[in-house]
Amino acid sequence: MQKLAALQAYLTDNQLDAAFITHPDNVFYFTGFRSNPHERLLGVFVPVQGESFLICPQMEVPDAKEFFSGTIVGHVDTENAWDKLVASFTIPVAKLAIEKSHMTVERMEFLESRIQGVAFSGIDEVITEMRLIKTEEELVHLREAAALADYAIEVGCSLLAEGKTEMDILSEVETAVKAKGADGMSFSTMVLSGLKTASPHGTPGNKKIEKGDFVLFDLGVIVNGYCSDITRTVAFGEPTAAQREIYETVKQAEEKAVALVRPGVLAKELDAAARDSIEAAGYGEYFTHRLGHGLGISVHEFPSIHGENDMELREGMVFTIEPGIYHPEVTGVRIEDDVVVTADGVEVLTKFTKELLVV
Amino acid sequence: MQKLAALQAYLTDNQLDAAFITHPDNVFYFTGFRSNPHERLLGVFVPVQGESFLICPQMEVPDAKEFFSGTIVGHVDTENAWDKLVASFTIPVAKLAIEKSHMTVERMEFLESRIQGVAFSGIDEVITEMRLIKTEEELVHLREAAALADYAIEVGCSLLAEGKTEMDILSEVETAVKAKGADGMSFSTMVLSGLKTASPHGTPGNKKIEKGDFVLFDLGVIVNGYCSDITRTVAFGEPTAAQREIYETVKQAEEKAVALVRPGVLAKELDAAARDSIEAAGYGEYFTHRLGHGLGISVHEFPSIHGENDMELREGMVFTIEPGIYHPEVTGVRIEDDVVVTADGVEVLTKFTKELLVV
Repeated sequence: MQKLAALQAYLTDNQLDAAFITHPDNVFYFTGFRSNPHERLLGVFVPVQGESFLICPQMEVPDAKEFFSGTIVGHVDTENAWDKLVASFTIPVAKLAIEKSHMTVERMEFLESRIQGVAFSGIDEVITEMRLIKTEEELVHLREAAALADYAIEVGCSLLAEGKTEMDILSEVETAVKAKGADGMSFSTMVLSGLKTASPHGTPGNKKIEKGDFVLFDLGVIVNGYCSDITRTVAFGEPTAAQREIYETVKQAEEKAVALVRPGVLAKELDAAARDSIEAAGYGEYFTHRLGHGLGISVHEFPSIHGENDMELREGMVFTIEPGIYHPEVTGVRIEDDVVVTADGVEVLTKFTKELLVV
Repeated sequence: MQKLAALQAYLTDNQLDAAFITHPDNVFYFTGFRSNPHERLLGVFVPVQGESFLICPQMEVPDAKEFFSGTIVGHVDTENAWDKLVASFTIPVAKLAIEKSHMTVERMEFLESRIQGVAFSGIDEVITEMRLIKTEEELVHLREAAALADYAIEVGCSLLAEGKTEMDILSEVETAVKAKGADGMSFSTMVLSGLKTASPHGTPGNKKIEKGDFVLFDLGVIVNGYCSDITRTVAFGEPTAAQREIYETVKQAEEKAVALVRPGVLAKELDAAARDSIEAAGYGEYFTHRLGHGLGISVHEFPSIHGENDMELREGMVFTIEPGIYHPEVTGVRIEDDVVVTADGVEVLTKFTKELLVV
């Protein structure tokens, strides 16, 4: 409810009457209720003063009650959800804040036709800014999601065997983490082997893993609505000197960036630390993407950790650090951790070893 | 290109200058190019006269060229995609058709700020109506997707064994169809066993299948951008008389509805045929959902086959027929086929047997 109060303070400061929030991630953020209503109406109405209410399909009301203690307005398919929404408003609304980057034109017109003379204002940036700094409760979930990602890597490594395909291993890893209580995966799991590791966005397939391959796992797990995202690259069979050198270069770059994390440092300084380290080793041209991305309810959110981002790190920000070298003739290697900015430094959520494992 | 011509005819008839289409499914429908650009701009600009162009991220241009022979405008992250879009317009635009149920308010405002005095008109229903009737080329893909769904059921049945969990079987089935060339699954695969079959929206888990269980597979496969959707329920071990009776009741209802399909019949008549058949057998209260849904680029599209839909079936419509009985103490059974309305009847795309299999 602290989050709703913060939103109301913004509405007061900006002389807005209310906000109507409909992005499922944001509804979850403000109410704790996670749902994907597809075409049906789901939203939180937040008046500048007084109690907020949730509107959702009637069949979801019992579920919603477990998470949200305020008023819940249910609607059924035989009634007009938008009429019901506007009839439930607790105050007169002339200025309404909406998520302009999420609400469709059709839905805005539904509101316009029902609220005489309403003016809309965008609330997207305000919510982005709020979600940027995680609460202690959010960190609890993120730690749990990271622990399960560590477990997934452990399972993945234990499965490596000649004759198995990338897809075999991928399926078994996903089954294992779901059995341990993951709500789902944060994104399509990646298990790549051999020179396929040299593609940052490669697709796992029926390639069998072979002795001498590096195997790259990039995966994440959702726990209580929060995402983790980890990458580890391991050697299947004894690596060559060239493979080892690339591995150690990425590891050093990753550790340098992690060591730098604390309030006041700029996002771009992290990117530069890792990039400079890789460039100094002569692999600069093979590190072709940004260093990392924010993490929370979405697997990609703010802050973005790239070379142009002047944003100062603040306590409570959570993001990935994931440098990589993609050498088309030797191997690809990426190492990725999830980190939290603490009052005076960094907490690393993902704890699986970064020493080169030879399986 | 025939599809673009049909859209231009609509623009002419309605005195619109152009349409700008951005829903990835619709972009695929009109250009053959399938992409999910996330936040980045992807769209087709269709002027009332002359050539249409595609706009997409620069890195996707090579891919797009394989599918779309017209002009392709690429944009990079360092330039404004909306400026580039408007600068590429081939005619003056005062009246622009957009997908109001897909375009966000933010994007509409981007256009508004760049096109002096533009007026928007919704094009959603027109595209829905076009997509409702499949071309012969689309049917080729749908047949292929259905054949692979049949194969998935075959694999699923061959995997049934004591001690295996629903998730084990699910993973193996998905791996098998992806190995056969499926682009992906149409939706989250469902493998339910025992009394879990009695929940129309159950979630597969770590329940082990046991002798005496019915096992329900509900799954679909995407091939060349087109979806299939099949359900079969099979017996693991000798079924009881009560289980058999429910099975035969669903099978009869399904076959009655399928037999009725031809141009001119109303959607609701199909629903009624299946429902009456189940009610006559005394199981009416356990058939709790509509009979079926349209199928194509989306796994749920028009027409909806329910008791209130007065729409006349027309040649080229494709939809599912999927009655079910969900008896909480005996078993759930659902049988689902994908069908096409032909000139004088029906073509059933899914061909896996509907006789009760005892594995």
